[in-house]
Amino acid sequence: MNDTTIAFGPIRLTLKAFLKPKLYSSVFILVDENTKKECLPLLHKFEYKAIEIPSGEKYKNLESCQSIWTQLLENQADRKALIINLGGGVICDMGGFAASCFKRGIDFIHIPTTLLAMVDAAIGGKTGINLAMEKNMIGLFSPAKGIFVDTQFLNTLNQRQINSGKAEMIKHGLIASDMHLENIFDSKVLGNEIIQESIGIKQYIVQQDPQEQGMRKSLNFGHTLGHAIETLALKNGEDLLHGEAVAYGMILALKLSVKYAGLHPTIAKENIQRIVTIFGSYKVNAALLSQLIQIAKNDKKNDGEHINFTLLSSIGKIEINQALKSEDLNVLLK
Amino acid sequence: MNDTTIAFGPIRLTLKAFLKPKLYSSVFILVDENTKKECLPLLHKFEYKAIEIPSGEKYKNLESCQSIWTQLLENQADRKALIINLGGGVICDMGGFAASCFKRGIDFIHIPTTLLAMVDAAIGGKTGINLAMEKNMIGLFSPAKGIFVDTQFLNTLNQRQINSGKAEMIKHGLIASDMHLENIFDSKVLGNEIIQESIGIKQYIVQQDPQEQGMRKSLNFGHTLGHAIETLALKNGEDLLHGEAVAYGMILALKLSVKYAGLHPTIAKENIQRIVTIFGSYKVNAALLSQLIQIAKNDKKNDGEHINFTLLSSIGKIEINQALKSEDLNVLLK
Repeated sequence: MNDTTIAFGPIRLTLKAFLKPKLYSSVFILVDENTKKECLPLLHKFEYKAIEIPSGEKYKNLESCQSIWTQLLENQADRKALIINLGGGVICDMGGFAASCFKRGIDFIHIPTTLLAMVDAAIGGKTGINLAMEKNMIGLFSPAKGIFVDTQFLNTLNQRQINSGKAEMIKHGLIASDMHLENIFDSKVLGNEIIQESIGIKQYIVQQDPQEQGMRKSLNFGHTLGHAIETLALKNGEDLLHGEAVAYGMILALKLSVKYAGLHPTIAKENIQRIVTIFGSYKVNAALLSQLIQIAKNDKKNDGEHINFTLLSSIGKIEINQALKSEDLNVLLK
Repeated sequence: MNDTTIAFGPIRLTLKAFLKPKLYSSVFILVDENTKKECLPLLHKFEYKAIEIPSGEKYKNLESCQSIWTQLLENQADRKALIINLGGGVICDMGGFAASCFKRGIDFIHIPTTLLAMVDAAIGGKTGINLAMEKNMIGLFSPAKGIFVDTQFLNTLNQRQINSGKAEMIKHGLIASDMHLENIFDSKVLGNEIIQESIGIKQYIVQQDPQEQGMRKSLNFGHTLGHAIETLALKNGEDLLHGEAVAYGMILALKLSVKYAGLHPTIAKENIQRIVTIFGSYKVNAALLSQLIQIAKNDKKNDGEHINFTLLSSIGKIEINQALKSEDLNVLLK
């Protein structure tokens, strides 16, 4: 992460300033049909080749990577080429992975165009794709050379997409800062300042523990079951955004935190209520819970029959590696 | 490379000693139909799951990786799983790549079973697969945790396969040590000592320059056109081993070295003659040369209209980054 530039401000200026002193042999911009139309015109004029992949989590796969690699090859990309990932989490994760493997690694930068990607996917050096509907099964820790955050891209999003990003910001508040948490719920508009605050929290955590040996696991709060909820939705072809799945995962993790990490029930209840107000409630029955457990056990963060949770003992105080058995999760049925 | 163990001796003993203090959650052994039959029985008894892929360079591709990843997933491999690559260069390169990307990276070790893999593919942390017939287009620098060299595996090889490995040893001699070069041509049998000598040369060079910024490029001697020869053979479905392609590439590189790096013609001639004695001669006409140039220009080591060669000014003295134009190669037609 040490040589990753994070720049805030109008992309027309920041990207230009980044590229000016560089000697890239060619520049490729990875887009989907949405960012090609809405975001690409906001960049300054320079020579590049666009590589387009269809939008959506279900295209974050090996076939899309193969298409990216083939287009790089057809356009004579060499080891001094640059890939610019212009899009949301799918584009950032997959473009970072594709770049890191092409000819044993070429430079890439992220221009996140969703709130979710700005505060989460683009930050922290994780890249990856899905395999057989399992999220991020194939991937690498590989830092971007630069991350360019421009809030004007948020104007291209609808409220659901904004809320999806807000879920990760709420997580940052829960695990690291009650002030950030209050700011999020108090703000009518998510301005530059509060977004920078959220990025700052993630960046700080990642810099302490880039390879996820310990502290970085705090970022998994809400994600153990959140990922399972998302994987299940993907399998069933349901329309569920990542942040929505994380929001539901956090509701469940807050309940587990009361039972297994000593979180005060009033604090859990208050924050569950705030999340429900934005995302709606999430109930699990026995059949659903059993499916989620099965998926969670196969998650790359788990290593055996237990499921590893990150829980909260209070706001800003996390308990990592809380290994629960399947039956421990029955508390969620009540 | 710093935490890579290299062990010599009977695999039954060295592998056992390596695994004993480790806490891997599960062990997978990557084999092809040949190493499954000939090499797997030579290991000590322990619990593992074999993953088989078909032998041959043409299976060193994304589809095989997907098959490996799917089998890991189906067998609940977690982040503490180990992959043992038991085979030649294809198994080592592809298994290392598959392991490095699975769940953002699990440990892997190499047990090279061909001479070529012992002195080359297994050493140095390069992993990769082919894309659309282009060699090693997708890959990573990612060091193995251990490399286990046992010359009893050489008994499973035919003379052509032995010679294929010998080509890389000859390269090590040419670029680094006239003593090693003489030892290779003087020896009737390639024993432990001379193989260790060859591994030592490669290891020393790689440790100086793991990411191939400078000195490591010396290992590309014979490979610029060697890779092109190999790629062409792969496209045409011809039966050509990697070392054979490298041997032909070295014949051409020795000729270029006389013209463009001041290598004494007598030294070039003597060593070309020695190579021809083992591998047969290699002549290029204008049509073939044009094809080779086209492929070489697309090689990941080249970055524009020039082709980068590693040449020799004398035995043990290399000249890297010798950028030649297409027309400079016409000397090879004479």
